[in-house]
Amino acid sequence: MEVHELATPALVIDADRLSANLATMAQVRPGAGLRPHVKAHKCTALAATQFAEGHRGFTCATVREVRGMAAAGLGDDLLLANEVIDRRRLADMTTTCEHHGARVTVAVDSPETVDAAAASGVREVLVDVSVGMPRCGCAPGEAGRIADLARHRGLEVRGVMGYKGHLMVIDDHERQRDQVAASMDLLLRAHADVGGDVVSAGGTGTCHLHDRVTEVQAGSYVLMDTHYARMALPYVQACWVMGTVIAATSRHAVADVGLKAMGMDHGNPSVETLDGNGADVWFFSDEHVTFVPHAGVASVGDRVHVIPAHIDPTMALHEAAWLVRGHEVIDRWPIDLRGW
Amino acid sequence: MEVHELATPALVIDADRLSANLATMAQVRPGAGLRPHVKAHKCTALAATQFAEGHRGFTCATVREVRGMAAAGLGDDLLLANEVIDRRRLADMTTTCEHHGARVTVAVDSPETVDAAAASGVREVLVDVSVGMPRCGCAPGEAGRIADLARHRGLEVRGVMGYKGHLMVIDDHERQRDQVAASMDLLLRAHADVGGDVVSAGGTGTCHLHDRVTEVQAGSYVLMDTHYARMALPYVQACWVMGTVIAATSRHAVADVGLKAMGMDHGNPSVETLDGNGADVWFFSDEHVTFVPHAGVASVGDRVHVIPAHIDPTMALHEAAWLVRGHEVIDRWPIDLRGW
Repeated sequence: MEVHELATPALVIDADRLSANLATMAQVRPGAGLRPHVKAHKCTALAATQFAEGHRGFTCATVREVRGMAAAGLGDDLLLANEVIDRRRLADMTTTCEHHGARVTVAVDSPETVDAAAASGVREVLVDVSVGMPRCGCAPGEAGRIADLARHRGLEVRGVMGYKGHLMVIDDHERQRDQVAASMDLLLRAHADVGGDVVSAGGTGTCHLHDRVTEVQAGSYVLMDTHYARMALPYVQACWVMGTVIAATSRHAVADVGLKAMGMDHGNPSVETLDGNGADVWFFSDEHVTFVPHAGVASVGDRVHVIPAHIDPTMALHEAAWLVRGHEVIDRWPIDLRGW
Repeated sequence: MEVHELATPALVIDADRLSANLATMAQVRPGAGLRPHVKAHKCTALAATQFAEGHRGFTCATVREVRGMAAAGLGDDLLLANEVIDRRRLADMTTTCEHHGARVTVAVDSPETVDAAAASGVREVLVDVSVGMPRCGCAPGEAGRIADLARHRGLEVRGVMGYKGHLMVIDDHERQRDQVAASMDLLLRAHADVGGDVVSAGGTGTCHLHDRVTEVQAGSYVLMDTHYARMALPYVQACWVMGTVIAATSRHAVADVGLKAMGMDHGNPSVETLDGNGADVWFFSDEHVTFVPHAGVASVGDRVHVIPAHIDPTMALHEAAWLVRGHEVIDRWPIDLRGW
């Protein structure tokens, strides 16, 4: 099938750009130095390309992601990097993992999360440490106590993790480097109390700054979005939603890609015409974007690319992505890890 | 099943509040005076309750919504209120509608959309007229010409529609009334040129202001969101996402409802504890919300309600909604009209 035959809105992944990002990251964080975060794409077919690149362990945000990765044969070393206290859901997850011979490690940060893991057939945990962002994670000074508690409950403690999302998009590189270093000081102090082989941290915006961790949890690098594009990172935009212009006046044009096809939490996505020009985006509606091209005029039937401001929730809105090379559609990849 | 047994995040619809909204709207716009917009919920089970209330015609935003409604036996009079130029998709839609004995009318606003409809087995159209919001819709002065063109192509022209989303949430009631009246002047002038029995317009924020149309296209009224709640409308919040507190410190708490479970284009959703207190919402992450309750403390395991800022895209992120009455889960409704 040719790209122009795709019904719109169509989530499109450019195979060559994807390959370029995979290759670049394999230089920055080769092999087990990267634990790709599947929350960024929720797609086992895409995860398989990361696995083939040598990154055989994965980070997951939800039980559904863990179970889907295990069932897809990508379960060498899965990390559920979020806290879960739902014992039934955790037990279903460990059953699925056992069935598929998958290894799963779960983040814990409190007595309640340790209890839930121990009661649900989980065998291995990481202690999640708060390193500056007010979300989950125990205080660094408590990490040793949580590790002791976990070992007391029969759990294997593999090490520590700490996520600092607030440091991903600091434009001032020196300030970012200093703040990452301060966060890692906290994480390594906790690690000294916890023990284990794993120190897991970071993301796409900081993966080049981590010389003191064993692995980085980057996800967005593989597809990218306009939020990360501001950061002068070595990754290229490999994913967009293709739309069709369905109305055009002398003042504005309207394409059939709305806010139900795009993650909107990082603000408006960008619009590009197929000749590579940008556009002023006026607003998104449920199924429309109203825009004015920077150059030329848009006509009914023209195709446009809508570039996500935030890739992760954009993927979660689509049933499948179309893998394309040039004008050709070469595969259809189900976004099969959606939901919880 | 009891509500507290639901795995979270769980999209919940309160059956009594839903019934209250259905009853209120049946007073404001009884029977065919309302053509409920299914884009607000994307759920045929919910649409069936609107049908049972006497609203037998529906508004749809996508081909998928039309096909799903037809297949669910809710196809007495379906309006695809958005322009589509994809002839294959339109032809699939008309085939599905014929198969299920459903009636479908399609919005047109240009020669291209008339051509697509005529070439795809569509029999009936409405002329979509721009009444002030820069999106689709022909200029009011062109509506007669579009209607003539459609009739010339063998299409039955049922009348006009005009959507003015920018007028839905004007806080100043007098200004809103004046602007709605000005928009309806444009629509009725176009209707005089077009002919037909249908004048379709409006939405939840303006449905009480429409004495000159034959039908209103409201959708959000039935579930509501915090954006419409500012408007002192007679509809109550009937839908929320239930979450579980998974981390709590002396400063903040974290629940497992993130931006992948909530439409974020209207800004942050609100958080309420089960005793009805609000919270300061700090930020949403992919799978988390960080918040501070206005009263009391949140503990790990507590349930919270996250109230959507925009109901339509929130529904599109979930596979199913749980219908509840008091503490009891009484049904599971698939959100079966997602996608395109």
